Amino acid sequence: VRVSELSAESVERGGYRHFMLKEIHEQPAAVAETLEGRHADGRVLEAAFGPGAEQLLDQAERLQIVACGTSYHAGLIARFWAETYAGLPCDVEVASEFRYRAHAVTPGTLVVVISQSGETADVLAALRESRRLGYAGVLAICNVPESSLVREADLTLLTRAGPEIGVASTKAFTTQLTALLLLVAAFARRRGRPQSEQELVRAAVQLPGALERAVAVEAQVAELAEQFVDRAHALFLGRGAHYPVALEGSLKLKEISYIHAEAYPAGELKHGPLALVDDGMPVVAVAPRDDLLDKLQSNLQEVRARGGRLFVFADDAAALRSTGGYQVLPVPAGPDPISPVIHTVPLQLLAYHVAVLRGTDVDKPRNLAKSVTVE
Amino acid sequence: VRVSELSAESVERGGYRHFMLKEIHEQPAAVAETLEGRHADGRVLEAAFGPGAEQLLDQAERLQIVACGTSYHAGLIARFWAETYAGLPCDVEVASEFRYRAHAVTPGTLVVVISQSGETADVLAALRESRRLGYAGVLAICNVPESSLVREADLTLLTRAGPEIGVASTKAFTTQLTALLLLVAAFARRRGRPQSEQELVRAAVQLPGALERAVAVEAQVAELAEQFVDRAHALFLGRGAHYPVALEGSLKLKEISYIHAEAYPAGELKHGPLALVDDGMPVVAVAPRDDLLDKLQSNLQEVRARGGRLFVFADDAAALRSTGGYQVLPVPAGPDPISPVIHTVPLQLLAYHVAVLRGTDVDKPRNLAKSVTVE
Repeated sequence: VRVSELSAESVERGGYRHFMLKEIHEQPAAVAETLEGRHADGRVLEAAFGPGAEQLLDQAERLQIVACGTSYHAGLIARFWAETYAGLPCDVEVASEFRYRAHAVTPGTLVVVISQSGETADVLAALRESRRLGYAGVLAICNVPESSLVREADLTLLTRAGPEIGVASTKAFTTQLTALLLLVAAFARRRGRPQSEQELVRAAVQLPGALERAVAVEAQVAELAEQFVDRAHALFLGRGAHYPVALEGSLKLKEISYIHAEAYPAGELKHGPLALVDDGMPVVAVAPRDDLLDKLQSNLQEVRARGGRLFVFADDAAALRSTGGYQVLPVPAGPDPISPVIHTVPLQLLAYHVAVLRGTDVDKPRNLAKSVTVE
Repeated sequence: VRVSELSAESVERGGYRHFMLKEIHEQPAAVAETLEGRHADGRVLEAAFGPGAEQLLDQAERLQIVACGTSYHAGLIARFWAETYAGLPCDVEVASEFRYRAHAVTPGTLVVVISQSGETADVLAALRESRRLGYAGVLAICNVPESSLVREADLTLLTRAGPEIGVASTKAFTTQLTALLLLVAAFARRRGRPQSEQELVRAAVQLPGALERAVAVEAQVAELAEQFVDRAHALFLGRGAHYPVALEGSLKLKEISYIHAEAYPAGELKHGPLALVDDGMPVVAVAPRDDLLDKLQSNLQEVRARGGRLFVFADDAAALRSTGGYQVLPVPAGPDPISPVIHTVPLQLLAYHVAVLRGTDVDKPRNLAKSVTVE
């Protein structure tokens, strides 16, 4: 009899050094699972949202998304999708803020709550408050079927990410985005945009393959990570639907590497944060195609002049090349709707490899809990 | 003949060491000037908004505020006022984001653009884009009567702050808030809330006196500033209408002291940023009354355990007392609507005194321009 030297936990990690890394690599499969059986012939199958879905979705004239942390960032991306592809007005708010303020409720506003665990205290309280305020109904996007959130919502679209152990959320986020993409596609059809529905569903179907290619940039990202190890700060820039991607990238770096990373919409750089840039402040730009970089050119001169280094995570269709002024990390291209999802992965990997190099407790970062069940 | 040793510039500074300090102290008078002739008997005089104001305001069912930097923070506070006191739905967006994205425009949405100079490139572009998109009209809040923004808007409410020389905006911000308070009061009346109109106007009238008292905390703030001089980071927390105050306080500190300060809605602390807190990260809480502090109690333990120091800028009605765990700086009390304006002043003074101690070029911080007339 040979006694295995592998602990039970390392078996669960499936050979990966950390749960977080395992969960990053599981994203293509988790997203495929979330899509499974929920679309056919370029259309969303609404039965996925539960009984009565058709009627509630028919009544919705507006969305109010409510979430915390990483799930809030998923909501911000969905807002762009809703307004761009479905012509559906959409607001997004942090749950702890939503629950305590006075509301001017627009009739016909459907509340969409997002939470991996379905037990986040502020999200549950927001759901209940929205009932009191007369919102039109509640749809939950959640990873745990037996959770309080799922029990209390009118409709649910379950992400099928499987258990997420790492405190820093990864596959929960990308499966939430997948679910939100399906939801927006359903609204696109209702609002007389069947072509948008098809565009979204066709893009969603490409997600697993695209995420597979995105995970494959790991070696390059791991190399890049060495340039962040000794930094105390970082600035993340994005624009439009990629600004929330920058927010999410900076949150990951904060959570597990304890580097003070902050995200800004790129156009706000000159309205203050540019004063911070010096040789201790790497600037990360999330730049699908090269439109963001064009706009950043004048700022870049100043970043460079002050010793700041720029790292551009660019859609490889942008054909950008590294120069003395900035270093490009090519991100696999994909159709417009899923570009924010694809660009998320290299930033998860960046945070992960920086944290490993810094020797932090990646899966259980200090001060944080996996599920925030108290206020 | 004796030759004066005072330079022309120092005469303009009126004896103050920097324009910024002079402008902080001018706020009570600038706000009084902005209120002058614009209200009577607890009601707003709508002639102040220009000819045709009544009709355009009558049609508005919703507000979309668009601005950059500090003006954006003024918009975020106005959103709370609009929803709380006028029951008027309100969205706020950064101009550089607004101008480039697809919009689902809700009919009857009035655009409110805010810019000190009236020449901010992204705000002007957003104004023009909003015309193309079919928004219901544009109202400008601006400090320069002859500016492009005022020329192109349908209605204008001029702040009367006088010339602002310091790059870090102070009196422009508080006079913008004063103008926005009058605007929301006008909407409160229209939406059948004459008592809210009276409440807002009565609160606005108290602003000059309240700001006078707020400026008087300078000596205490200057002493507090010494604890920030050697820090590279800071976290600012607020809730509701005081979250944008935290944003503005952190932006001021960034701009002129080059300390990496970041603001969060207090409830989001546990969803990530708490991992950053250690003895190098002072935490500033903007806490009118003591409701925020109640909610923060459990987080506080962790902040304290990791050597983090908490500085609470609390309404003096809260009767909080400093303990080993946190240090309280009492802020003069005032009626609810103007509390965010009052709490702004000590944070301006904090940024100013930290910058002076660090020896930066307070009035002309590195990399920044007073008016961002390019993208």
